[in-house]
Parts: sequence; C-alpha cells; structure tokens
Amino acid sequence: MDYPVSDETKFYHEPEPLTLESGGALEGVRVGYRTWGEPRSEATLICHALTGSADADEWWEGLFGPNRTFDPEHDYIIASNVLGGCYGTTGPSSKRPGSEDWYGRDFPRVTIRDMVAVQARLIDHLEVDKLRLVIGGSMGGMQALEWAAMHPDRVEGAVAIGVGSHHSAWSVAFSEAQRAAIWADPKFLDGAYRPGEGPDNGLAVARMIAMISYRGRANFESRFGRKTLEDEFEIQSYLRYQGMKLVGRFDANTYLRLVDAMDSHDLARGRGEMSDVLSGMKTPFLTIGISSDILYPAAEVEELAIALPNARYQMLHAPQGHDSFLIDMANVDGIVSRFKHDLARGITPADDLATGAGRGSSWAF
Amino acid sequence: MDYPVSDETKFYHEPEPLTLESGGALEGVRVGYRTWGEPRSEATLICHALTGSADADEWWEGLFGPNRTFDPEHDYIIASNVLGGCYGTTGPSSKRPGSEDWYGRDFPRVTIRDMVAVQARLIDHLEVDKLRLVIGGSMGGMQALEWAAMHPDRVEGAVAIGVGSHHSAWSVAFSEAQRAAIWADPKFLDGAYRPGEGPDNGLAVARMIAMISYRGRANFESRFGRKTLEDEFEIQSYLRYQGMKLVGRFDANTYLRLVDAMDSHDLARGRGEMSDVLSGMKTPFLTIGISSDILYPAAEVEELAIALPNARYQMLHAPQGHDSFLIDMANVDGIVSRFKHDLARGITPADDLATGAGRGSSWAF
Repeated sequence: MDYPVSDETKFYHEPEPLTLESGGALEGVRVGYRTWGEPRSEATLICHALTGSADADEWWEGLFGPNRTFDPEHDYIIASNVLGGCYGTTGPSSKRPGSEDWYGRDFPRVTIRDMVAVQARLIDHLEVDKLRLVIGGSMGGMQALEWAAMHPDRVEGAVAIGVGSHHSAWSVAFSEAQRAAIWADPKFLDGAYRPGEGPDNGLAVARMIAMISYRGRANFESRFGRKTLEDEFEIQSYLRYQGMKLVGRFDANTYLRLVDAMDSHDLARGRGEMSDVLSGMKTPFLTIGISSDILYPAAEVEELAIALPNARYQMLHAPQGHDSFLIDMANVDGIVSRFKHDLARGITPADDLATGAGRGSSWAF
Repeated sequence: MDYPVSDETKFYHEPEPLTLESGGALEGVRVGYRTWGEPRSEATLICHALTGSADADEWWEGLFGPNRTFDPEHDYIIASNVLGGCYGTTGPSSKRPGSEDWYGRDFPRVTIRDMVAVQARLIDHLEVDKLRLVIGGSMGGMQALEWAAMHPDRVEGAVAIGVGSHHSAWSVAFSEAQRAAIWADPKFLDGAYRPGEGPDNGLAVARMIAMISYRGRANFESRFGRKTLEDEFEIQSYLRYQGMKLVGRFDANTYLRLVDAMDSHDLARGRGEMSDVLSGMKTPFLTIGISSDILYPAAEVEELAIALPNARYQMLHAPQGHDSFLIDMANVDGIVSRFKHDLARGITPADDLATGAGRGSSWAF
C-alpha cells in the first residue's frame, strides 16, 4: 500500500475477476473500507469524492453522531475507497496481484459504473441486501446516481449533492486542463514514473486549477480580496499551498484515472435517451444544489431533480462553492437527516409533490 | 524582433529613460504601433488585451470601416503594442539596447500604469493633444481606466469592456494557476530559457486554463456538450489546440509579465479609498459588461459604472463569455458607436442620468 490508510480500514479481497465497462478485466481486486455500527442486512453507503477515502468520519465528521445522518447506534454504515483510488482499494498505485510491480500507467480506465460494481461486491460480502441510503457529493453523488440506475431493487433512498445527470463540457474542460498539467510535467514519463518520483509539480498545478473550480469567485473575494502577504496576494500562496498539500497525499496516475472516471459520468450512456433513463429511475432521491457552485451549478442539479420522478430538490445556501458540501456540514446534515427521517416514516419525494412541496423548489430551512 | 509583426507596424524609439512604477528604469524603449487615418491633434487610442497586438484592424476588424467605431475617413486612430509585449514593443523577448542579449527574465515587472506612461510618450511623439476616445477590453479596458485616472485632461471619452475597478482575487487565482503551469515546466529554467527553447508545454497549459476563464460554461455546453471525436470529448481537443496555438505566437516570459500587470490592476493603489478615486474620475465613460463573462462578471463592471460619476453602463448580451468582446463585434461596434456619436453631439452619460436612462441599467439595443 503506497498511501497511508487509517488503522480502522478493513480489506476485502474479491475472489472473482471484475469485468470493466471498457471490456477489460481486473483480477485480485482489493477493497479498502470502513464500517460503523452493528452489521445488519440494511445499510447506509457513503461514496467519496475525487481525493476522498473510506474515512468518512474524518472528511464528513459533522454528519456522524447521535441524531445525525450517520448514527452508528442505529445504522450500519459503510464507506469504501473507490476502484482506481489510492487509499486501500486497487488502483494505479497498487501492486499487481502476486507481483512487486505496481500497476502505474497500465491500470485500466475505470468508470463510475465500475466503482459501483466493486461496491456491490463488497456489500454482498458484508451480507447487506438493501441500502437504506446511498449518499455522496460530487464524484460520490455520481456513484449514488449510478447505484439507483444499476441496482434499483437494492436502493431505498439516495442523496446526490452537487452533481447532474452527466459531466458537462465545462467540467470536462476543467478536467482536461488538469490532465494537461500532469502530462506536461516531464517527471510524468507518460505515466511510467516510479513510486515517489512522480510529477509533483504537474499534480500541484492540477490541484490549483481544481481549487479554482471548487471554490469560485464569491468565496475568493470575501476571503482574500486583494489582501497581500509578503509581496504577493494571499490568494496566490493559498492556491500554491493547496497544490503542494495534495502532492503529499495523492498519486498522479490515480488522479488521472479518477478524473477520467468523472468525465465518464453520463446516466444515459448505453441506456437510451436521457429523459427516458431519468424518468425510469424510481428510487426516492434527494438532490442538493449548492448556491455558490460554479463547477456543477445548482441549476444543473435542479434540472436533474425535475427529470427524476421521485426526487426532492434542495438548495444548500453556502458561500464556499462546490466544496461547501464538505465544509457546511451542519446544514448538509440537517437537510439529509430530514430526508432520511421522512423516508423512515414512509414519506417519499413523490408525497412532497402531492402536497405541493419539494421538487424543483428551494425549501426554507 | 522575435515575434512577427505586420508590415504596417511603425516604431517609435523613446529617447528618454522610462521610470517604472516599481522604481526601476528602462532605457531605449521602442514602441511598435499602427495608425489609421490622417494625423491630427485629436485621436482615438485602441488598447489591446493580454495576447493582442497593435494590429487592431485584425483582432477588432468588425469595428473598422465607414460609419463604424473606427472610421479612418474621419478619425486618426492609434494602436500600440503594450510595454512588456512581444509584438514590436520592448519586452522580455526584445534585445537589450545595444546588445545581442535579450531581456528574458531580467525584464522588470510592469504595471498597467507603466503601459499607459509609454502610450503617453507615443502620442506626444505623434503630436496628439487629446484622445477623443480611449478604448479597450479586458487588459485593454484596464488601460482605458488608467488613462482616465492618470491623464484626465487629455481624455475626452473612454470605453472599458469586461473589466472592473481592480483585479479580483478570483482573477488573480486564474493568473496564479497559469503562472504555476509555466513555472512547473523545467524548460522554463526560472525564466532563463533561450529564445525558441521556452516552456511550450507549460505555456500551453496556461492558455488552456485561460480559455476556460474566457469562455465559460454556457459556451462550452452549447458548443460541445458531450460530443466526441476520435475517442475523446471535442472540448478536450479544442482546449489542447488552443493551448498549442498560442505557443507558436507568444513568449512565456512575456506572458508572465503581462499576467502580472493585469494582477496589478487597481485604480485605488496609492491613490486613497476606491470610492473617492472613482468619484473623482470625471471622464465620460462607457463601461460594457458581458452577460456570459465568468472572469469579470457583468455585475463587477456595473459596480464600476455606478461608482463613476459620468459613466454609462451597457450589457453586451453574448454567449461566448469574456471573449465576446472579440467575437460579437457587430454589437460591440453598435454600442460603442452610439456612445461616440453621443459624445460628438455633446451628450455625456451624466446627461443620460438626467433623463433617467443609462447608468446601471441595461439598454435595449
């Protein structure tokens, strides 16, 4: 394992080969995962975003605890590192099964659907039949959407935050600039760099580009404006610091594979017309748009909610851009908790509609 | 001269040293410029944006011609390459006076005010007393604003498009990611690369980042969506093509100096409170916000117009983002022409106010 994982991380070794959406196969897939609460046949599944991990109680700490969204006293909660990741699950920085070589650039392209396929194997292994809730933001939200599309019989409720029905050209553009930054670093060696000798500068630039898209104008203005620090603007050192910080904890090939996977996000791929695909997804959904999100604008999330037949849309009013779902945890927890309690009482978004509340509107909160 | 300029380009050699805002001095400054129409003591000055040149009849072709904004039959029109540029005016890619060495990384930092100082020397040389109009978009608009701040007695009207009173943290963030992309290219050699052996990959990535900021989400969605071409999304090849295209025509040290100059844009620097500075600028102004601009949002331009005592604000409704001022030339020409004709008839934005029209509102057009 090349990147450290928490002591609580468990590992599942999938005995069967995994056939990928691209047609290739992966053997000996290992999954790094965490669980909270007593095992039972109904569980909550947390899906992480681009550079996240199975340690959801760290990056979503504010959603864990008594009477919160994730309450280990009452729920069995699962989070796993995604396929292609570098925090415990097989990915480019993993060694090939039975070898001392790591996959590196030979690791195949994976999609959001491949990630979900691996998670399905994991919950089979954990003897979980149903998911009361599948939840995630950004790339995690893409997984929640695919869960509902791929396994409607196993998903009783889903929450997708800051994500639409497909990755937009706008988001692909941000991805491409980030990929190009990594490719441009000669240490990338077309992906053939050795562990620990990767394209740090290129990865740092990629992260800087990403941070611009995660935060947005209003956040930078209120936080930095034209404040200076040692002969430069604070926003400059802030961005560079964010870039270097990722380099210490993430692998460049992994970053590329996961960015590619996000670009693959398209609920309609191979399934027909988007409107038909969405109208066929009957899972009760909560979709949350973020008021200050410039990468996945709230309108995009609301469009998704309107096209889904059983979705509640809620706006998270927060100034930190796309990243707000990781920052304004108290409000995310409040919004999701209510959805979860409603589901537990048998109230679905379709019922919201019957009373005129919910879909396509921003609830007062 | 390292980058080709048009045959029509003329050169002015400034005999006196130029003292820069930073305190340093530049000797032997040369200015590459173009003129249209018969010389006279009143002229129109066109200021170009980041990668532009004195060849305004190329990049703003749609504004040139009979009855258009720039009508050489009736006006004396001047455009010059900015100080620090690579199209004829002294900059990092120029040779030092009396030497075969080029400036390269030793070229000093310049500001928008330094650019205006050089333009003022040029129009003195051309025996122009007054500028009927100073006009520019983006970095060109910054120059128009500084002209009014530095030489209010010589400017009779000014047009600033897609620009605010200062460079925002948001814009500085885009600049910083671009600088980091160039710095990360080992061929940059801390700026000491030899002519023709520069950081092409880093500069290309910088341009890709910039293109995202120049166009914005709506433009990419309507133009590209999820259209694919040879196993990738069209937006990917489009961005990479834009990146490589700039490399062939621009110098990396020059790019860095001009991006720095844009970051320096701040009408209040050293002049007191912004509101006082702006309320003291009596020049008749037309400020144009672009409806789809994500880099310099229209609201930022409108705020500027509201704070200026004699400014008309107009929205350019165009879908191509910040770049719209270079694309939707017919509408830019129409908006500016009307302002120019009003000025010629002695009608200033202050008069608009008297009739309730203009400032802070979007005119039907």
